[in-house]
Amino acid sequence: MTAAIYKVLLLLCSIQCVTQSVLRYRSFHNKDVFREIKDHRNIAADLIKLSVDGAAKNQSYNRLAEFVDKFGFRIAGSKNLENSIDYVIQKLKEDGLENVHGETVMVPHWVRGYESAKMIEPRIHHLSMLGLGGSIGTPPEGITAEALVVGSFDELKKRSSEAKGKIIVFNEDWAGSYGKTVAYRSGAVPASKVGGVASLIRSITPFSINSPHTGSQHYKANVKKIPTACITIEDAEMMARMAARGDKIVIHLKMDAKTHPDVKSRNVVAEIKGRTNPEEVVVVSGHIDSWDVGQGAMDDGCGAFISWQALSLVHQLGLRPKRTLRAIFWTAEEEGLIGAHKYFNDHKGDMSNFDLVMESDTGTFSPSGLGFSGNKAATDIVRAAVDLLDPIGATNFSTQADVSDVVYWQDASVPTGSLLVDTSKYFYFHHSNGDTMTVQNSHDMDVASAIFAVVAYVVADLEDMLPRKPTNNTDIRLFD
Amino acid sequence: MTAAIYKVLLLLCSIQCVTQSVLRYRSFHNKDVFREIKDHRNIAADLIKLSVDGAAKNQSYNRLAEFVDKFGFRIAGSKNLENSIDYVIQKLKEDGLENVHGETVMVPHWVRGYESAKMIEPRIHHLSMLGLGGSIGTPPEGITAEALVVGSFDELKKRSSEAKGKIIVFNEDWAGSYGKTVAYRSGAVPASKVGGVASLIRSITPFSINSPHTGSQHYKANVKKIPTACITIEDAEMMARMAARGDKIVIHLKMDAKTHPDVKSRNVVAEIKGRTNPEEVVVVSGHIDSWDVGQGAMDDGCGAFISWQALSLVHQLGLRPKRTLRAIFWTAEEEGLIGAHKYFNDHKGDMSNFDLVMESDTGTFSPSGLGFSGNKAATDIVRAAVDLLDPIGATNFSTQADVSDVVYWQDASVPTGSLLVDTSKYFYFHHSNGDTMTVQNSHDMDVASAIFAVVAYVVADLEDMLPRKPTNNTDIRLFD
Repeated sequence: MTAAIYKVLLLLCSIQCVTQSVLRYRSFHNKDVFREIKDHRNIAADLIKLSVDGAAKNQSYNRLAEFVDKFGFRIAGSKNLENSIDYVIQKLKEDGLENVHGETVMVPHWVRGYESAKMIEPRIHHLSMLGLGGSIGTPPEGITAEALVVGSFDELKKRSSEAKGKIIVFNEDWAGSYGKTVAYRSGAVPASKVGGVASLIRSITPFSINSPHTGSQHYKANVKKIPTACITIEDAEMMARMAARGDKIVIHLKMDAKTHPDVKSRNVVAEIKGRTNPEEVVVVSGHIDSWDVGQGAMDDGCGAFISWQALSLVHQLGLRPKRTLRAIFWTAEEEGLIGAHKYFNDHKGDMSNFDLVMESDTGTFSPSGLGFSGNKAATDIVRAAVDLLDPIGATNFSTQADVSDVVYWQDASVPTGSLLVDTSKYFYFHHSNGDTMTVQNSHDMDVASAIFAVVAYVVADLEDMLPRKPTNNTDIRLFD
Repeated sequence: MTAAIYKVLLLLCSIQCVTQSVLRYRSFHNKDVFREIKDHRNIAADLIKLSVDGAAKNQSYNRLAEFVDKFGFRIAGSKNLENSIDYVIQKLKEDGLENVHGETVMVPHWVRGYESAKMIEPRIHHLSMLGLGGSIGTPPEGITAEALVVGSFDELKKRSSEAKGKIIVFNEDWAGSYGKTVAYRSGAVPASKVGGVASLIRSITPFSINSPHTGSQHYKANVKKIPTACITIEDAEMMARMAARGDKIVIHLKMDAKTHPDVKSRNVVAEIKGRTNPEEVVVVSGHIDSWDVGQGAMDDGCGAFISWQALSLVHQLGLRPKRTLRAIFWTAEEEGLIGAHKYFNDHKGDMSNFDLVMESDTGTFSPSGLGFSGNKAATDIVRAAVDLLDPIGATNFSTQADVSDVVYWQDASVPTGSLLVDTSKYFYFHHSNGDTMTVQNSHDMDVASAIFAVVAYVVADLEDMLPRKPTNNTDIRLFD
């Protein structure tokens, strides 16, 4: 091929690209897409009605209750999680969904084992506790040491000369939000740096009925690992008062926690194949794994099951949008988004086909709409889709999707969405034995399912995919 | 003595009685008593200021924290309760109160011992539980039996043919109040009557983070005693769902609970002796014992300590009312008002000298005034005294004192009072491991102390005792 011909071809190609982009631009920026969305009003109303007031009323709640009552908690690495995945795959198939399958992921296998913490001075008192995910155990005979109680990392730094050989007790205040407080859960690192032999951390919650909360924590390379656990607000505050009075506090800590080699788990996928653009997908998701406490109903059984329900509602109405609807049950979220990360790596080559990736992982308390992260044009479109939820008043809209598992897609500028809920009590139960069906409400789950169903269906059925910011991927779009 | 002389004496005596009564009537029903109360406005303001904004600010909270942190829970029959009583007697003396002493009471001595409840079918699940006060234990090997889950006594009756040999699980709804629900805590009796081998009762609370609550329960004569415990809302609801699905539930229950012979305990008394009528008393009170969970800070350390504080405030201002102020820390309230009943029996002969008997036993959440039980004339007087609390807005008034320990005095028509508080969260923590200093608020305790101090002081300093209804006692008053 001569250079001249090559230049002509390049020019033709450029003209085609620009033409396509202009067409897309028109489609995004004229009113057609909003007309399209309005034309989905009846379908949206049917999905809503089926979910909150029709044959599917209470269905997601009942499905979740049966699931969590049967399996209880489902921690990564456990046989129980894999059994629960087998069960879900079977149920999704029975529900008539398509392409139901698991996608293999290697996940951590941490086992809590026996654990106890006992204050032995100034008096005997059993501390309610939960070892933190990934913690090492104590020696078999346990650790008996004096406690150093601090209210903050700063205080630990100031009092570092007192820390050697002590069990560091963190009595940090709840700083108004989980995000502002959760750094303390990795208190083992600063505790170890100053010579602490273990750390006991006030649970990351604003409210307690003597409730310990577990969760992940992160050791650092080159900092000696020490056993680490959460205790209750009540006990942390009590020991802080005792220390302030000058009482010597001695604690005996015993933890048999152990990390075994990684094991195979699976993300679970179920679909309704798109009728015209099956390779393009709208994702709804939640994670199927939980910590080894409670039932993992709120974190995040409900997120996974309303995602299933979104597809189930579409299927029950015999609908099939242009694009594929895909429900994903992530595995090993709690250990650091392990399943979600593997999925992103396996599928990021196909990123241009991911239209919208949604997730629910902050419970389903009083769902009121959607959080969405995307560019201005996409935001306008999704906001218009959310307006179709007015029959149930779920039209609240935030311009930030609050995500965990789907953060990789968000970081890659793929449009992402999250269920908008009231999180004021979420952290009362989070990672505790209080995370059970008792905190779930069937009407809330019906509303949440309707929100996911309507947004996913409408977006998947529009003429065009949502516009998105430029990414590193090949599918760069010019006009948004 | 001739009959004539006798008749003259009788006539003179009658004239004297009528004269006294008329004088009393005038005193009660003219405005003098309200003028008297208004004349106490400055003293009331001083007591309030000292408590909420002066040198005594936080004092009752700090005293209670030091006490419950030192001793933890204090169950009747325990050496720990007696040690805590010794401590309190010492502290009351150090505080400068008078006639500080214990009055002996024989109290029950029930010891929980090791206990566990495990669901072994349809899957292994550890049930959080607390044996109920006075429960018998299981045989050493425990009891393994199928569960019969019922939602009510009525359902148990209807399904009595299914109950033989089963562990009866009560999943009663919270009926809107403690009073309407607490009968289920003695579910062992109906369970045993239909052949049940143990009872597991949903905890008497509207809210739970997997929290079991203990409490008293009452076996009946001629009904075989069976082991009985409370489980959590979460587990009761889960087993109800399982049973509704037709799952067979099998539970292994092990309880080493044992009732030992009664032991000596003490009600604790402290006073500020009256300056003109020391034999007449106004009582403020709470109970010092607790269940063997948490710290017994809310139930009822706070009630006992604000009673102490009421006297302490009066003492710190160097005041001494006409009548005696008496603080009483009851013992063994939880086992059935044991200390209070003994005290009533020991002192009822002196009933005419008990002017007003007050109590705080529903926590100190947002105290807003006083509940009072007495006749119309007494109500008007006490309401006027409560009006002196307007500097802290604590002027709410209810015409029913909500009492436990002082019910014997109330039944005998002695005027009784109770702290008015917000009880909406009280039963979240009641009889659970969540009853700790964390639920207490120092400002609330300062306000509560001020309420008791002002009402007790003013009533004790009036010219006359409160009018009361006729009782069976000798001190019958004519005009009220």
